[in-house]
Amino acid sequence: MDTVRPAPLDLTGDLALARAAFDAFLTATPAKADVRAATTDLGGVPVVDVRVDGAPDPGGVLLYLHGGAYVVGSARASVRLASAVARAGGARAVVVDYRLAPEHPHPAAVEDAVACYVALLASGVRAEQVVVVGESAGGGLALALEVVLRDRGLPQPAGTVVFSPWTDLTLSGASHHERAALDPVLSAAALAPRAAQYAGAAGVGEPLVSPLFADLRGLPPLLVQVGSAEVLLDDATGLAARAAAAGVPVTLEVEAGATHVFQLHHGTDPAADAALQRVGTFLRRVLERG
Amino acid sequence: MDTVRPAPLDLTGDLALARAAFDAFLTATPAKADVRAATTDLGGVPVVDVRVDGAPDPGGVLLYLHGGAYVVGSARASVRLASAVARAGGARAVVVDYRLAPEHPHPAAVEDAVACYVALLASGVRAEQVVVVGESAGGGLALALEVVLRDRGLPQPAGTVVFSPWTDLTLSGASHHERAALDPVLSAAALAPRAAQYAGAAGVGEPLVSPLFADLRGLPPLLVQVGSAEVLLDDATGLAARAAAAGVPVTLEVEAGATHVFQLHHGTDPAADAALQRVGTFLRRVLERG
Repeated sequence: MDTVRPAPLDLTGDLALARAAFDAFLTATPAKADVRAATTDLGGVPVVDVRVDGAPDPGGVLLYLHGGAYVVGSARASVRLASAVARAGGARAVVVDYRLAPEHPHPAAVEDAVACYVALLASGVRAEQVVVVGESAGGGLALALEVVLRDRGLPQPAGTVVFSPWTDLTLSGASHHERAALDPVLSAAALAPRAAQYAGAAGVGEPLVSPLFADLRGLPPLLVQVGSAEVLLDDATGLAARAAAAGVPVTLEVEAGATHVFQLHHGTDPAADAALQRVGTFLRRVLERG
Repeated sequence: MDTVRPAPLDLTGDLALARAAFDAFLTATPAKADVRAATTDLGGVPVVDVRVDGAPDPGGVLLYLHGGAYVVGSARASVRLASAVARAGGARAVVVDYRLAPEHPHPAAVEDAVACYVALLASGVRAEQVVVVGESAGGGLALALEVVLRDRGLPQPAGTVVFSPWTDLTLSGASHHERAALDPVLSAAALAPRAAQYAGAAGVGEPLVSPLFADLRGLPPLLVQVGSAEVLLDDATGLAARAAAAGVPVTLEVEAGATHVFQLHHGTDPAADAALQRVGTFLRRVLERG
């Protein structure tokens, strides 16, 4: 990873600037030329429909939830990584432009994800054809979505893939200090105010805000990938332990020395390429089973 | 897993009977006809050398540490599973007949494992060609071995594979009560007296007895497989979290509904077969890298 050091994610300054900078960072490398991305809406929520041109007609659909601490990021800016995941799994992706805090605190993002999922099923896609994929905040959102689906009696998707998920907005993990010197991207100081803005009246410890504390029973097979050079390491290892204790089939992959959402560096970092290959294997397995 | 329910491992009764019953259980299904097993010794420790006949000359060697709560089990009785792991990884296996408690408490087993490893290197095998594999107590022993290697300035093997590792002989994991009703094999009541016998004067909390509490820095890539229907679930999830925090590349795979060392049921349980295939992929990857 030494040749690909990401810049710190600036979450502390002006939000309009942070949003522009975050999108610029993510779109600096374009998606491959065979990726088609179409803006549309699903259940009243704006989404970007991502397909890999010339790929065999994919039966699987990824409901893709981007990162950005619930305050920055966009569906458009996540097309490159979403398309790489879709390519690895032989699927298409629907990238959700869920509403962001502080303008729209919790549960706006969760409700947008639920609305997309329900609309996807209403369009004729079976739950067994859907895998929810989330990175960073989107990883926490993926789990919150599935907890809500369970509690509302809706069918679970075929599986869940999360990259460096932010599952604990109380920032209680020991990795917030143990990994602080190693993590070039995130810090508790940068995350804390955004956590409070997203949580709003619900509070950062609410299980749908911090799904590390949620009852995870009944959730589908879960793949967690995380780097060891992350302040969010414990968010991932704790999630794996909690999900396992809840009876969820779990695979946790900790990439030594890797940084936050290192899968972004696919094409240049062999560890990212290998990680996405393993995601592809997982996606084919759970989608086949469905 | 419903069709393959293992019997409880009787650790509470007479030890001579328990040893005979355990070996009878493990050898009830023979290894495949193409498996050759030769009793020999390595560094003064009895071992069984296991090869799959007709397999391409394997460059990799598995140092295989059997289970049995440090008080039962034998190299001979573990040939079938060791050969299945060797086959999956295109390697041969050296199954260690380490000394058992209570006759030989800690650190006898660790020193036997170290002696075998050192003798293996002295025989011309490079550390990069060795993967340490351990099941149950052998999983904890695998980690203790590697901690000792590090502390003595000896080279680490290429990787570590542990099945349902017993890493916490203090039995502090919540899974000891949360999973008690689900686990048909083990219980805290059966394990506690054997933990005390193995630990001896060192005490059950000593890091080389309970490597969950050891400093795991510098250990090689680790694959942990465990079933969710195990009182030892937290031994595995806790190990993954601790190893990740120590910078060790970790993969944790939690098989929903599976029981203690479910890989034993390869050939009849598809989940066991699939798990061994993933072990094979891991072995080839770390041995290639070496």
